This record gives sequence, C-alpha cells and structure tokens, in this order.
Amino acid sequence: MIDQAEHGGLRRALEIAAHPAVPFGPNPRVGCVLLGPDSRVIAEGYHRGAGTAHAEVDALARAGSADTVGATAIVTLEPCAHTGRTGPCTQALIDAGIRRVVIGRRDPNPVAAGGVEVLRAAGIEVDADVPAELAAEAAALNRGWEHGLWHARPLVTAKLALTLDGRVAAADGSSRWITGSAAREWVHRLRARCDVVLVGAGTARADLPALTARRTDGTLHPRQPLRAVMGLGRVPDLPTPERAVPAVQLRTHDPSEALADLHARGRRHVLLEGGPTLAAVFLTAGLVDELIVHLAPKLLGAGPAAIGSLGIGTIADALALDLVDTTLLTSPDGRTDLQLTLRPPAA
Amino acid sequence: MIDQAEHGGLRRALEIAAHPAVPFGPNPRVGCVLLGPDSRVIAEGYHRGAGTAHAEVDALARAGSADTVGATAIVTLEPCAHTGRTGPCTQALIDAGIRRVVIGRRDPNPVAAGGVEVLRAAGIEVDADVPAELAAEAAALNRGWEHGLWHARPLVTAKLALTLDGRVAAADGSSRWITGSAAREWVHRLRARCDVVLVGAGTARADLPALTARRTDGTLHPRQPLRAVMGLGRVPDLPTPERAVPAVQLRTHDPSEALADLHARGRRHVLLEGGPTLAAVFLTAGLVDELIVHLAPKLLGAGPAAIGSLGIGTIADALALDLVDTTLLTSPDGRTDLQLTLRPPAA
Repeated sequence: MIDQAEHGGLRRALEIAAHPAVPFGPNPRVGCVLLGPDSRVIAEGYHRGAGTAHAEVDALARAGSADTVGATAIVTLEPCAHTGRTGPCTQALIDAGIRRVVIGRRDPNPVAAGGVEVLRAAGIEVDADVPAELAAEAAALNRGWEHGLWHARPLVTAKLALTLDGRVAAADGSSRWITGSAAREWVHRLRARCDVVLVGAGTARADLPALTARRTDGTLHPRQPLRAVMGLGRVPDLPTPERAVPAVQLRTHDPSEALADLHARGRRHVLLEGGPTLAAVFLTAGLVDELIVHLAPKLLGAGPAAIGSLGIGTIADALALDLVDTTLLTSPDGRTDLQLTLRPPAA
Repeated sequence: MIDQAEHGGLRRALEIAAHPAVPFGPNPRVGCVLLGPDSRVIAEGYHRGAGTAHAEVDALARAGSADTVGATAIVTLEPCAHTGRTGPCTQALIDAGIRRVVIGRRDPNPVAAGGVEVLRAAGIEVDADVPAELAAEAAALNRGWEHGLWHARPLVTAKLALTLDGRVAAADGSSRWITGSAAREWVHRLRARCDVVLVGAGTARADLPALTARRTDGTLHPRQPLRAVMGLGRVPDLPTPERAVPAVQLRTHDPSEALADLHARGRRHVLLEGGPTLAAVFLTAGLVDELIVHLAPKLLGAGPAAIGSLGIGTIADALALDLVDTTLLTSPDGRTDLQLTLRPPAA
C-alpha cells in the first residue's frame, strides 16, 4: 500500500507522462517522480518518445547532484528490464541506490517485462498495490500502445453523433448541431487523446471537416492528432489551422490496410469520425474496439442514417454490442445529450 | 408529518386503490384506510368506478359497527366536497366523527376540490405532508385522469423499441426480438397500467399483435387495456386471448379524433405502440405526452426506421425532447437494454 506522499507522486507522474509535448510514436508514455527519504520530491522525469531517455533515467539525470541513495522512485509503468535503444531502467535504479519503487501498472510487453523481479532480486522494495483509480489512469494512458502489443494494429474508437431515431443529419444534409456544446467539447478532448482522426473521403468532400482538437475558446489543443482521410478518389485539402497539423490520405478501401499504414507510422489509437459508410466498413471487418455514441434527445423522421449497410438481413444477425457506460452530457444552455460507450462482446 | 402507522396505512390505501378489479372509466382511483385511536386498522375501502361508493364511504360502510369516532382516515386523494352521483365524502367523514385525515394528494379537479378546507372548518385535523415517494405514487395512480382534467383528452405515452441506429426491424422485416426479455416484460406491466393500447392499421396487418398484458409466465394480467387499431382500411381481427379482452377499430386518420373517441369511452391513458407512421402522426400533432424508448445496444445498418416522416427538412427544426430518465433493463441472460423516458419541453 502506498502512502500519501507516494499517492501525490503517482498522480504527478501520470500528469507529466501525458505531457502534450511528447510526440506520437510507438513507445508508451511514462512518468517518474523521485521522493527522498523525507518524502520530498527530488526530481521528475518523463519519456519524450522513441530514442530518448526513459522516464526513470530522465528523472535520475535531473536529480543532478542530489542524493538518490535511499530514495523512492514512483513510475507510472513497470521499469523495463531489457536493453532497447536505451539501457534497462532497472539497472539505472539499482545503480542510483533507490530503496523502494512504486509502480502504477505492470508492463504487459513480454519483451520488456520482468522489471519487478530484477528490482526485488537487487533488494529493492517494489509496491504495485496502488488505488484502483490511479491504476485505471495508468492503464488508460497507454491504452493504444497496449492494444498494439497484442493486436499489432492501432486501437479503434468509433464515434457517432445521432438523433434518437438514428439520423446523423436532416433531410437537407444539415447536421450542425445534432448534439449540444458539452458533447462537442468532449469530442475535442477525445481527439487530443488520440493519435489519428480518420474520416472517409465522402465525409471529407461533403463536410470539409477541420478534424483538429480545439479548446472551448477555439484555440488549438497543444496535442493534435494526425488527420487522415481514407479513400481512393481525390479528396479536398482539409481546412488549414493557424499552425501546422499534419494531414494524410490513406489510398485504400480496406480498413486493415489503413490501420497497418497508421501502425507503421507509430500511431496507436485511431478515432473514426465518419461517415456512415466508413463506420460500416470497419464494423463489418470487426475492427471497431470501442463505440462512443452521442445520442441527442431529438427526432428528425428523415435524413441519412448513422450506419451504412452491414450486410445484415434478419434480426437474429444484428451486430450486438455490450453497453459499458452511460453518461449524461449537459451543456451550459441546459441541453442534455446521452453518451453511450459500447464494446464488442468479449470473444 | 405522518407517523409510522399512517405511513403503512397510506401504502396500503395506494395498493387497494390500484386493485385490478376496478373497471376503466372517467373516475380517479382512490383508496382509504381507517385507523383507530390505537393505530390499528378499522376498515379499508376503495372506489370501484363511476356510480359506486367513493373510497371513504366504502371504508366507513365496511367499518360496520366499529366505532369510527376519533379515528384517522387515510385517503390517497383529497376527499371531495361536491355532490356528484354520490354525496360529498367530506360530510361522511364529519358525520362519522373522524378526528384526523391524511391525504396522499390534493385534488386538482376544481369541481371537487376544497375538501381540506371543509374538513378543517369542521374541526378535523388534516395532514397532506406525506413522504415524497408516497406522494409521487399517489400522483402516478391517476396520471391519466389528472391529464384529462386539464386537456380533455387521454394522456398519450408512445413506446418505441429500436436499435442504436434507429431501426425497428431488420431488412427482412423481422423484429423479434430487438430488446431483451426484461424490456419486453416491462412493456407488459406498462400495458396493464394503461387504459388503451393503440396501433396503426399497418402494424395490425403486418404483425397481428396480441396487444394483451401478460405476466412472465404467459398468463393474462387481471387488468387488460382496450386494444385499439386506428385506420380507415380493413383491419384483421387481433389474436383472441384465452379470455375476452375488448378490441376496437378507430375509423380515422386524425389523432385528435381518435383520442376524443377514446376519451368519450372513459379511457384516460393511451399507450401508442406503433408503427412508425402512427408515431409520426401523433408526434407531428403534438399529441405525445411521454416517449419511452427501449434502446437495444445493437446495430442493423438497414431496415425500417422507428419514426416516419415528421415533415422536418433541416436540423434546426428537429423535434427536441427533454430526457427525464435513463434506466438500464438487464435480462436474466445478461443482455442490457437502455430505457429512456422523454417529454416534450415545457411550453
């Protein structure tokens, strides 16, 4: 069990791990806080992407001349025991005389795991018994990266905004706005947490979406996902934001190919934002890992449907999902939308 | 504030007021329990429909030779102060020497109200300060009747069962079952609380629905709504249950006419069960007071939409509703559907 100072240290380590300056890439995000025997912070560090120092080594370097003998290292992810582009972090911690290590999450990567055992063999006390809420945050931090380890493709979150009667736009094609401002802001925060925002060529042509992650005040979030348009035909240039946000066309109709391309670019979490055809293609291929539905309590009675053909003819073949969360999103004007989180049933 | 014995008495009065043997009709459902000065039950009574004794008079009659002087009368609805087909209940309570009256709900009917004042003028202690949960039950008991007082038409609850993408059936028309058993059982309990189950002629022809209220074991609920099919064309006979459940055709396309007809028959709460055209007709006319959506966490990608044309062309004209409740309905097989309750925004 961790103490109060360690609790604060882990929270801080989670915060710096998610630093928006960390570039997207194939490595996990990790933060580290060093506490002296008096529970004061000696140094902080975080990993800044492939080829740079790991969080533990960064923190130890920043400790400078401070004494790290007898200190506690708090790390969001189990320290690695393997030598990749950098040496193993476990050795660096042992060499620094660290007495105790607190771990937010065990490393699921079979290549890098085993850190806990190496540390314990060196006489270091290891504690991975952290509060559930912090453990969940540590897991969420690298959701896409962990998914990539097991599936060798990015995690795919599909997002739909629709009316009670399943419409994504009115009969004249207008869709601004189906949902209230709270739901729309939530989507921008989600974009900033993803590596890629992906739309189909049809949606790009019809809506010319910016696909940027913006704050409530309209300014760009420091962290911007790659903007990707999938399709073989010509696609228009997406609107140019006030600073460079990369955009790319994925020239394929095959969702597996599109994901392989994005994976090769080091992208681990894709947000699928439309339209109905692209959503249907990914769903049919079994390539949607999570579906977020923003359901507006309104009716249209006509207009394009949220999901294109899934090739389903009869009710027994309906694509069933597990409803894992229901949240109300209330906008300042009092409008409330319903946010549903769904996942494919565990196989 | 009411005491423990009165609390139990009001709960019992609510229970007997809803007795399934009470026929449908234009009168409110009312229950009454008489408690002696020692807090023991002297007698119970309830109203059995137009032309029969009111609950208070029924309870006093059943008290027989027991002494009612100094007793407490617990009534689900404020005793009436007017003479209709029966004399005023307030006078009966005064004549019986009742000392205290507990009231579950004030009578919103301007013709009958004023009972509290009459009782107090006669020196009887009146207490309408009952716990919110019992007050809500007393209000729900006569929701349709109260609605009729203000609007001179029945209360209309529309119910839809649809997929996440707004389909009420698959491409081949199959719809059994979109929702799980918990949702379907809930609908049967709702039917037993309504006066009428109404469908369009198209739905009657396509589905031949029984429209009866059944228990989990398949037997008929003691209380059966009137089964009504609306439309000018020929409609098939609905399936005949094992005991008589009335069915009627409303020969009109006008929802106001249909409601006026049902109101004239003494029906005060109509459950609209489909299909998409009938739902659209009532919604467009502003004649849906409450919408219950059973949302199944599944996708079809094709198939009939839940709501027919509402004549809405652009997003700004969408029919907005207030989401007033969200409940999960989990079936024994683990399937979970989402129940949404919506109402038109207060004018």
